[in-house]
Amino acid sequence: MTYFSSEFKLGILGGGQLGKMMLYVTRKWDIYTRVMDPSEDAPCRMSCNDFRVGDLMDAETVYDFGKDLDLLTIEIENVSVDALEKLEQEGVKVYPPSSTLRTIQNKATQKLFYTDHDIPTAPFSRFAYTSQIEDSLSNGGLQFPFVWKSAQFGYDGQGVKVVRSLEDLKGLPNVECIAEELIPFKNELAVIVARNSTGQVVNYPVVEMEFHPEANQVEYVICPARIDPEVAKKAVEVALKVSKGLGHVGLLAVELFQTQEDDILVNEVAPRPHNSGHYSIEASYTDQFEQHIRAILGLPLGNPESKLSGIMVNLVGAEGFRGDVHYENMEEILEIDGVTPHVYGKKQTRPFRKMGHVTIVDTNMERARSTAEKVKKTVRVISK
Amino acid sequence: MTYFSSEFKLGILGGGQLGKMMLYVTRKWDIYTRVMDPSEDAPCRMSCNDFRVGDLMDAETVYDFGKDLDLLTIEIENVSVDALEKLEQEGVKVYPPSSTLRTIQNKATQKLFYTDHDIPTAPFSRFAYTSQIEDSLSNGGLQFPFVWKSAQFGYDGQGVKVVRSLEDLKGLPNVECIAEELIPFKNELAVIVARNSTGQVVNYPVVEMEFHPEANQVEYVICPARIDPEVAKKAVEVALKVSKGLGHVGLLAVELFQTQEDDILVNEVAPRPHNSGHYSIEASYTDQFEQHIRAILGLPLGNPESKLSGIMVNLVGAEGFRGDVHYENMEEILEIDGVTPHVYGKKQTRPFRKMGHVTIVDTNMERARSTAEKVKKTVRVISK
Repeated sequence: MTYFSSEFKLGILGGGQLGKMMLYVTRKWDIYTRVMDPSEDAPCRMSCNDFRVGDLMDAETVYDFGKDLDLLTIEIENVSVDALEKLEQEGVKVYPPSSTLRTIQNKATQKLFYTDHDIPTAPFSRFAYTSQIEDSLSNGGLQFPFVWKSAQFGYDGQGVKVVRSLEDLKGLPNVECIAEELIPFKNELAVIVARNSTGQVVNYPVVEMEFHPEANQVEYVICPARIDPEVAKKAVEVALKVSKGLGHVGLLAVELFQTQEDDILVNEVAPRPHNSGHYSIEASYTDQFEQHIRAILGLPLGNPESKLSGIMVNLVGAEGFRGDVHYENMEEILEIDGVTPHVYGKKQTRPFRKMGHVTIVDTNMERARSTAEKVKKTVRVISK
Repeated sequence: MTYFSSEFKLGILGGGQLGKMMLYVTRKWDIYTRVMDPSEDAPCRMSCNDFRVGDLMDAETVYDFGKDLDLLTIEIENVSVDALEKLEQEGVKVYPPSSTLRTIQNKATQKLFYTDHDIPTAPFSRFAYTSQIEDSLSNGGLQFPFVWKSAQFGYDGQGVKVVRSLEDLKGLPNVECIAEELIPFKNELAVIVARNSTGQVVNYPVVEMEFHPEANQVEYVICPARIDPEVAKKAVEVALKVSKGLGHVGLLAVELFQTQEDDILVNEVAPRPHNSGHYSIEASYTDQFEQHIRAILGLPLGNPESKLSGIMVNLVGAEGFRGDVHYENMEEILEIDGVTPHVYGKKQTRPFRKMGHVTIVDTNMERARSTAEKVKKTVRVISK
């Protein structure tokens, strides 16, 4: 089947920044796209052939959106998997497959998948309700500290809390959840694996998330990770094992912990382009968005290696600002060689909202790292 | 003035492939854009905020299009310069300025500009009508062979003919024209110069157009040009002189001949992104489209240097095919490392129509050149 210039119709569930960056590729290759997002103002409202507003968790809405498409993909995991299953049964290709999404969507199921497939991950207990955790603590089945995670809808850091005392448990929703051992990791790493519908597999280099020493927030995504090659090799092996087990088609971003003992543990996965791969637009031979489109179309996968060292800085809404977004000092960072800002096009800022990112590329990693710090200190996302 | 996330409105006259690639940048930076093209099906119909169909040469249409914009640019020179002048008088910024376009639009005026500014160019004579050429030939003012060029609307190779005999003159339109000495050049080169509205100037490396030995058609644009550094230096000097003389804002692509004696002569210029700079999307730190947008917005110019060697192959409609376009063997070239096809989204092919291009990047120029040949031999633009 030929996609270029044919009547082939691709659908994307979710119209945020990941979808928007996928649309760069569909425009480059003139592929027909239909996008759905709950927000009328979503970044994808332009650059697709057909933009629709709708609830991604509503089975009927998603089914109606997809029933006359040739292929459906996602830019966010929280979509109606029941609708995707029905679409698959009716012959619409869905990549990642509904089975992959079903495994991933529930964090307890995802963790069970790792243990079932002998994939290293932090020890955990599953609870049908948060209220059952106290019993487990009192009978010694669980100790402080641990990481509480709601089983459903854990996307984007929500629904996760480090629990160090009974006090910390208060106020948590009484839902299905897991309690995971708190790993005092040395590094947080990620590996993006691409797998196409014919079974070809390639992986991007290991990237490293550098945290702000105080705020405990990811400040920089650094490619390649500044780690021992042996650790990198182990990280790739684990990521490929997860990819194989899940049988996804498209990208799979595997987030990993490097423990103090240099073991690799899987934290969580996302079956789509991922924040940890944004650097690839400027740094890689084939960026993650093109790679995802290649993979789901069954095209040969591109070279995932880098042309240069790359660092990505997220542009998140500054604390204390809500409203019409304003990017302060953007002109100043444009003066620096190898700096490319991306503005997602969300009209309203709020504290910590992902509003854009900046990529820094350089032949020299140390210089790139110092530029990244300069960028981080210069640009600010505020409201007018 | 801040462009990002403000109510700033940018207009683009022309909605073809150059406009489409400019829109990658305005989407990346979330800048509001309005585009006009005579064709409803133009590649820019998507990815802009407001697409309008209209005649770019009609003064009233262009004036109406531009009157409530903050800034207006072009992706094609053949637009109503009278309308642009009026818009400038009313406070709309127009880059390139109407004065630059007026100098360039008429080939006789453009040639006079070079001689007035002591810029090397092939000797020429201007004629009010083609019919006057015969007189000049008979009185010895002109000799065969020469290059006939219509003064108006010379865009894209139309309106140019090599004349070797009286026979060749037959059938040429009886219009204002020039007869230019035929230069037996060693190489055709190009230099893209960017100048922003605050006067900052940068130039891209010299590129080389490699011609098909028989068809006399540009087959590859190669960056950097495989020429003597002294010749490259001279080419850049000449290009910068043209840029300074024209006082353009935005990009200026300067096409040059390298003579058998290694002199540099200006062939012609285009005050906009140009086919000779397409390689920059994959190969340069700052691609030509982003550079043009930076320049016209008065932002700091980006680094024009290359990350890697780059070669561009045009995808033009194959001879003998007209109708719904089909890209043959696209999947095969996607298997090769460092190969990126661009499909412009024109629905109908015809012989030699520019339908797309393919960029090849590599750390090694010789390997890139051999990949380019493979690409050229593999992919074909036909109709179904």
